[in-house]
Formats: sequence, structure tokens, C-alpha cells
Amino acid sequence: MVKTSQGGALRVALAQINPIVGDLKGNAQKIIQAIVSARKAKADLVVLPEQSLPGYPAEDLLLKGQFVADNRHALKAIQDACIDVTAIVGFIDKGKGNTIYNAAAVIHNGKHVATYHKAHLPNYGVFDEKRYFTPGNKPLLVKVKGVGVGITICEDIWVRTGPVPALAKQGAKLLVNISASPFHLRKGKEREALLAKHAKAGRAFVAYVNMVGGQDEIVFDGQSVVLDTKGKIIARARAFGEDLLVVDIPEGGTKQAVLNPYEEILQALVLGTKDYTHKNGFEKVVLGVSGGIDSALVATIAVKALGKRNVEAVFMPSRFSSDQSLKDAKELAKNLGIRLKIVEIQTILQSYLERLKPFFKGKPSDTTEENLQARIRGNLLMAFSNKFRWLVLTTGNKSETSVGYCTLYGDMAGGFAVIKDLYKEKVYQLARHINKSGNAIIPLSVLKKEPTAELRANQKDSDSLPPYPKLDPVLEGYIEENLGIEGLVRKGFSKDLVGQVVELVDCNEYKRRQAPPGVKITPLAFGKDRRYPLTNRYRNKAT
Amino acid sequence: MVKTSQGGALRVALAQINPIVGDLKGNAQKIIQAIVSARKAKADLVVLPEQSLPGYPAEDLLLKGQFVADNRHALKAIQDACIDVTAIVGFIDKGKGNTIYNAAAVIHNGKHVATYHKAHLPNYGVFDEKRYFTPGNKPLLVKVKGVGVGITICEDIWVRTGPVPALAKQGAKLLVNISASPFHLRKGKEREALLAKHAKAGRAFVAYVNMVGGQDEIVFDGQSVVLDTKGKIIARARAFGEDLLVVDIPEGGTKQAVLNPYEEILQALVLGTKDYTHKNGFEKVVLGVSGGIDSALVATIAVKALGKRNVEAVFMPSRFSSDQSLKDAKELAKNLGIRLKIVEIQTILQSYLERLKPFFKGKPSDTTEENLQARIRGNLLMAFSNKFRWLVLTTGNKSETSVGYCTLYGDMAGGFAVIKDLYKEKVYQLARHINKSGNAIIPLSVLKKEPTAELRANQKDSDSLPPYPKLDPVLEGYIEENLGIEGLVRKGFSKDLVGQVVELVDCNEYKRRQAPPGVKITPLAFGKDRRYPLTNRYRNKAT
Repeated sequence: MVKTSQGGALRVALAQINPIVGDLKGNAQKIIQAIVSARKAKADLVVLPEQSLPGYPAEDLLLKGQFVADNRHALKAIQDACIDVTAIVGFIDKGKGNTIYNAAAVIHNGKHVATYHKAHLPNYGVFDEKRYFTPGNKPLLVKVKGVGVGITICEDIWVRTGPVPALAKQGAKLLVNISASPFHLRKGKEREALLAKHAKAGRAFVAYVNMVGGQDEIVFDGQSVVLDTKGKIIARARAFGEDLLVVDIPEGGTKQAVLNPYEEILQALVLGTKDYTHKNGFEKVVLGVSGGIDSALVATIAVKALGKRNVEAVFMPSRFSSDQSLKDAKELAKNLGIRLKIVEIQTILQSYLERLKPFFKGKPSDTTEENLQARIRGNLLMAFSNKFRWLVLTTGNKSETSVGYCTLYGDMAGGFAVIKDLYKEKVYQLARHINKSGNAIIPLSVLKKEPTAELRANQKDSDSLPPYPKLDPVLEGYIEENLGIEGLVRKGFSKDLVGQVVELVDCNEYKRRQAPPGVKITPLAFGKDRRYPLTNRYRNKAT
Repeated sequence: MVKTSQGGALRVALAQINPIVGDLKGNAQKIIQAIVSARKAKADLVVLPEQSLPGYPAEDLLLKGQFVADNRHALKAIQDACIDVTAIVGFIDKGKGNTIYNAAAVIHNGKHVATYHKAHLPNYGVFDEKRYFTPGNKPLLVKVKGVGVGITICEDIWVRTGPVPALAKQGAKLLVNISASPFHLRKGKEREALLAKHAKAGRAFVAYVNMVGGQDEIVFDGQSVVLDTKGKIIARARAFGEDLLVVDIPEGGTKQAVLNPYEEILQALVLGTKDYTHKNGFEKVVLGVSGGIDSALVATIAVKALGKRNVEAVFMPSRFSSDQSLKDAKELAKNLGIRLKIVEIQTILQSYLERLKPFFKGKPSDTTEENLQARIRGNLLMAFSNKFRWLVLTTGNKSETSVGYCTLYGDMAGGFAVIKDLYKEKVYQLARHINKSGNAIIPLSVLKKEPTAELRANQKDSDSLPPYPKLDPVLEGYIEENLGIEGLVRKGFSKDLVGQVVELVDCNEYKRRQAPPGVKITPLAFGKDRRYPLTNRYRNKAT
């Protein structure tokens, strides 16, 4: 049973904030505001996320001595604001020489009274913490109003050899974990199961505070929680938004509902897009809408993220574009309340072909001419971007990106690839989910027609690729589950299908290397999650 | 004194080979050939580079269980070929569960008799070994013809706490280090100084065998060496080429001369370009030549790497291109003996401007129109690439790449960025070096004229940027030395200059993220060496 030395409940405030990487001043300000709000709410303890002061991941900024010094300086300002409440704040601590730690400062009455150094440094998936940090080797237990509070940072609770048992033994009644835990679908559920295990094993309450916000390809989903000693959730903060969750221990606090999977994906994409745009100083975005499902979904997400006035759509027909495509693009724009510009590309294409004719004569038309169309569109969008300072959103999905069914410098040209981690089947499902709650924003005919790039007459995606319902599960097995050809065949996929898909994924690494970042949704997104050599002769052939 | 149990010298063969990442079969074949050659040369011991079997770095291929299994299977074939000689071969060893080691197999008479696991795993700069490998914890000493041979792998000898003293104590008379040590300018010198220290401290001979060849952004330079117990070099293999260096210990062997710095840069660029092109299955390359120094240098390197028949040059004039540029491009092509295609871009540009007019009216001409020209050129080169399967080489240098004086999807469009790690001043120096040894291949007027992008009338690089002799040293201080603004000002650079340069570097990360790979020449190249967040509000302002 938790009881403070005054005999009452311990009031804990979980400050789920959205910092910006590198914005030491702004982040310090945000942290101070959270502390002030917690004090107003009469909290005894206010807890901020991992690395909330520098932002996470700060990557090679961490190698700059000046950045580390500036972060410690900023911590001083936070200290001074911290009266009548104990705060736990994530920052970069400096040791001997160039040694730095991923650290938590315990601040009480204006004084930095204790420091915890993260003991377990993740160095897999999107994480590179061993590149920067030295691991700590001492658990930290502090008393807050007489209650033993054990402090851990993110990975510390995900490994078997973590400090939780030692903290429990030392008498921790409350286990605090500060995290910057990247979202993937259903990550919240995994976390809550893990936290419940710790609560039960340590017979302690658990307060878990997670960062929220988008940072390049990662979104932090928030969903901070407090659990009782039986592992029951007694309070839960918002998903995908800032929150200050004030919880009396043992009684509990506000408990936000968990989102359904499609809503989770949608909100991750919306927050990721909004934060990438705004944190990089853009107000408006521009994208090409083709009348197809991918661009329809991206436009919808962009409107949800930035507002309809800040989304510019451009329809760029060639002679292969159907009337239906134009109709659908127009209807989409109308439904979303956004402007639609129309820029024909036929004469531009003609001017290229004219110039290239002497060199290409005798050669049949092939993907060269198809790519040219995609690249003209890329150039037009970039021209709008350059002229009006609009960020270009690309619209490629994960199925296309996996097999290279996309044009480098064409439809891949842009600053942010909103749905790059969403397989085509998921694109459809998410579009239907949006339509359910939003009066069929995405035109029905867009959902129904067969996917086509419209880069030649009567082209269909299925001319070049297996149909998406067949393709997507193989991709998932190959990319997310890291199965080899034999493993995939054992799963029941045909050898031919698997061979074709694996070959396509393997030989398109060079395209992905030059792709813009986009929101990570799956456990294994293209980007820092998956680091493949470009020069790579390994081909795991079916035997 | 080294003496075999038969009383003679120990004959060691350093097999400096150029494997291809992932090509297990091909690499095994290459290793077997080296072993056979060593046997013919009557060597007692043949030593191959770190990870010579899988190639280095194999990156996330290492996370594929099948790949690791295939590598161990390939090792078996090598074993069988290994008669009458002891071989040390770099491979991936497998431990419990998913544990893998960066390992050296000692093979004798067809048997894998001992295994060493690399104890020190680099996880900085371009290295990510802690992402994959588990460190070993046992030094390995083997007897070869009665001589104690201590085995280490790369990083093991670069750290203070490495296994060398323990090996010396155990009686190692010969210290073997197998490496895949990425080149940067003068790296060979650093290595030899380090090896001499180990030789003297351990009173042992040192045999250092390094990989050779290009792998994406890295070049391995070879320059394998043998040192005597006083730290004197008694044999040195070729730089930037395969070699089998047969050395009698203590007597010595062939000693290749060390290259001068410009020749070193040139050969690194030539090998990097050649290997990226061929290892990725291309025969021919195409590049835009503008009449400027950068494209002149890249064309020259390409010819040295691939031969003149395999280099296609395209001159793409606009109305801003001078007659001199055409003249220079033609002269360059003639000097190099390569074809020059001329494709005017004016009408294509016109067709874009026509289409964009309704949207741009009232807006002054700006970088939008300049970028369009660069992007049209990028599209044309990509069209040649698509139609004829030529790899596009880009021609941007490190000064431009640093400050973003380049166009994404324009002059940055391509597969390999040959001189991306060469500052502009170095570009000039290298061009002069080439002209010295090659009858003024690069036209004199190219060397003499003022740098210009020719994207508007009378444009000069110096309109937008500090002159390169001023710019380059600031970039070097900021990027390679990681100095902050204050550090740079302390070095004597003006506060205004530093402020301008740092701001430009910081805000152009997004361009570099989508850039193609290129050869690492400096200790800190853009690429895996320098991992900056795109979303980054940190600005270290001059105070």
C-alpha cells in the first residue's frame, strides 16, 4: 500500500509532452510549463519523458560537446522553476572525457538532487544508443514524501537483466519509467502487458510516461499509464496528443480508452505528418492527386493534420489519364474542401521526347517514357514547392516501395512520404475506416477501381505485380518476419510468387535509399529500421 | 627471433582480396584461389581479411538466419581446399540463439581447428557492429610450425584494452590482424604507426591484412603490411588493388611504395567508382558535363575506372550556357576520347514555364526556375539511364553538398556521387595532379574560369557562397572537427562567415538524406558517418 509520510495518497503527474529535437530552449519552456501545471494540480511528483530536454533521438547532435553543454545549461533553468514538487526530467548527462549518459535528473526544491543513468542501451531496430551513450550501472531509488520511488529509463524494463528486481528489493513502492518509445501498431498493448508483469513481480505501482509527437520517421504515441500492484491500469493518458495525467496513488485517475487499430494508424499518420511539417517550419503542403486511392488517402490525412487551407492538390493528366481519374480527383478535392490545380503534362512530355528522339531511334517505348511522365510530375510539384515554400508529400505505399513499383525523382520526389509504411491492402482498409466516420470523403469509385499508374494505355498494377492481396502477405513475411525463401514457402506461399517478390525487394534497395522519410507504422519500416547494403549479391534462391 | 620448428623462416601470405558483400559463393571461390596460390608459393600460413567470406559490411543481411547459415556452409568448402597450409579466414560465427560473432577461422589440413571472436566491436563513425555481433572474450594463440601466432580482428588493436598484451605474454611471436579498415586520406600512415607500437610493445612481428575494394560509400585501401619486432615495415602490399604478399619472417618481402596524397585520393575514387558500377551489374555510366571543373573531374575518374568506351557524356545547354562551356565540354570529351551528346533543354524548360505561368503569374523568377533547369537535366540523364541501362554519376562536390548548393532530383539525381566527399579546393588540386601526369586532360580554361552553375544570366557561385578558399576551411572545422561556432571563431574565422556557413550546413540535411552514395575520402563523410536528424531545431548561434 502506498502512503506518503503524511499518511495520504501520493499525487503523481505524468507530463506527456511533445518536444522538438534540438530545441533546448523551447523544450525547457515546455517542461517548465508542465511542472507549473503539476504544481497547480498539487502533485507531489511530476515525471517527464526520456530525453525530453534535448528531444529524441538527437542522433549525432549528441557528439557535439556544445550541444551537451547547452542541454545541461538548460536544465539549470528547469531546476530553478521546480519548487514544492519533485520532478524527474530526461536529459543528457556528461561524464569523464567524452562520456555521456542517457539520464534522468531528480529535481527537488530547485536542486538537482540525484541522477539516474540508463543501464540498458538499445542498439537495434531504429535505435543507435551505443553509438552515443555509456551505460549506467547503479539503480536509483529516491524517497518522495516518504514513498520509495525506483527510476528506470525505457529499455531498462524491456530486458531480462534490468534493474526492477533490485529496486523492488530496495523497497520501491512506485516504479517510474520514462520513455521515448516509438509507435508501431498495437505497441501500447505490448507495453501494458510488460508493465503489468513488472508491477506484479515487484509488488509496486508503476508510472510509465512516454513521449508524444513525430520525429522524422518515428512517431511517439504517448499513452502513458499508471498500474497498481496487481498490474491493473488505473490511469491512461491520451494517445497521439500532449497530456498531463494527474493520478493519486493508490486511487487512480483519468483513463482514456484505447483506440481501435485503424484509428491508431490514422492518428499516427496525422500526427507524424503534422509534426514533420510544422517542426520543419512549413505551413502548407502540396501533393499530386491522380484519382487513385493512395493520393486520396494522403490528401485526407494531410487535411486532418494541417487543415484544408494548407493542402494544395495538383492533378497532372497525360493522354493516358482517364476521364474518371479527373472526375475522382475533383470529387475528392470537393469533399475535402481543398483547391485542385490542373496541369497537363502532355506538351512537356512531348518536348522531352522530341529532344531524345535522335538518341532513342529504333528503340521501343518502355519504362523510360513511363518514368519521364512521373518525373515531369515530380518536377512540377517541386516547382510549386520552390515557388511557394510548400512541402511536397509523396503518396507511395509500402507495397510499391518494397518492390520498387515507383519512380525515383518522380512520384518518389518530395519531403515526406506519409503512407510509405502502409501496405496497399491497409491503404484500402484505412480509407474505408475514414469513410465510415466521415461521410464518404474518399469517393467510392476510387475505392472500387483497379489500381493503375496510368503511365501507358490500359496499364494495370497487376500487369507488373501479383495482385495486392497475394503480394502483401509475402512482403510482410519477408520484411517484417525476416523469413527466407524456404520459410515463406513453408508458410504456404508458392515458390514462384515468393521468388518473384524477394527478387523485386532485394534489387530495389537503391530506390529506397533515396526515398524521403515517412511514418513508421509496422514493427519493421524502411528507414533506420532496416539497413541493407546497396551493393549486395546475396540472393537466397528457392531450391 | 622467429624460427619454425624446422629451424627455418615462417612464410606468411597476406591475401588482400576484394570480396563482394553477400556473394558467398564468389567470395569463397576467391578465398580458395588465394589459398591455392599461397600453397604454390609454399607459404606456411595464409591470412585473409576480416569478414572476407560474407563481405563487409553486410549490414542487416547479418540479421538473416539463412545468410549466416549459408556463410558457415560456404566455409566448409574453403576448409576442404585447405591442405598443407594454415589459413585464417574472416567469417560469421554463430553462437547460442541469435548470437553471432565477427570471427576468424583457423583452418589446418582441411579442419577448422580454432575460432577467434572479435572482442572489440566498433560502433561509431560508419560502424554499427554492436547492432549485430556479440563481443568475444578470449584471446587466441595458435602454433604454426611451432611459432606462436596471436590472432586479432581490426578494432582489437585500435583500443587500449585490446588482447595484444595478453597474446604477447602467452608467447606470440607473430601478431596477425585481419581487417576491413575503411580508407580515408592518409589512413595507411596512421595504421602503420599503430602497428609499429604494437610490434615494439609485444616484441613480436606483425602481419596486418586489410580488405581491398569499394562497398557503397566505403573504399578499403588494402596496403597490408608486415612489421618486424622493432616496428619496421618489412613488406607492404599494393594500395587499391588485390595482392598476395608473400613474406618470409624474419627476412621480409616485396615493399610497395606509399602513394602521394593526390594519387591516393585519385585511386580511391577510381576504385570506388569501378567497384560500385561493376558490383551492381552496370558496364557503362552516363554523366552530364557542363564545361565546369566538377564534371570534368568526374568524367576523367570514370574513364580511368571503366575505360573510355564505357563513359557517356551529355552536354545539356540552356540559354544561360556560354559558348566557352560548350567548347570546354567538347575539348574534355576529345581529350578523354569519349562520346559527347548534346541535348538542348531550352524548349523543355519553355514547356514547363508555359504550363506553370497561370500559377506563377506576378511572381518574380527565382531559384524555382533555376532548379527546373537542373531537374530537366536530371530527367534527361535518367532517361538515358533507363533506356540503355547506364548508371548515372552525379558530379557534386563536398562544398556544394555541405551548403546545399545543389538541386535535389536535379544535379543530385543519380546512382553514385563520385566526388561528394571532396571539397572544391581539393577538386582543383586533384584536377591539376591529373593534368601533371596525363598531358592536360582537363582543359586549362576549365581550371581557370570562375565557378558558375549557369542557371541564370552571369551567375557565379560566389553570388551565393563565400569564395571556396574561404568556405572550405570553415566546412572542414564544422564537419570534420565538429567545432561549434565559438570554436570556429577561436580558430580565427569571422563570426559572420561562420554563422552563414553553419546555418547553410544545418538546414540542408534533407537534401543530403536523399543523395546517392559516394566515396568516403575524409575522416567524416556525409553518409553513415554523420547521422543528423532532419527535424532539428538546434542552432548553435554566435553570441
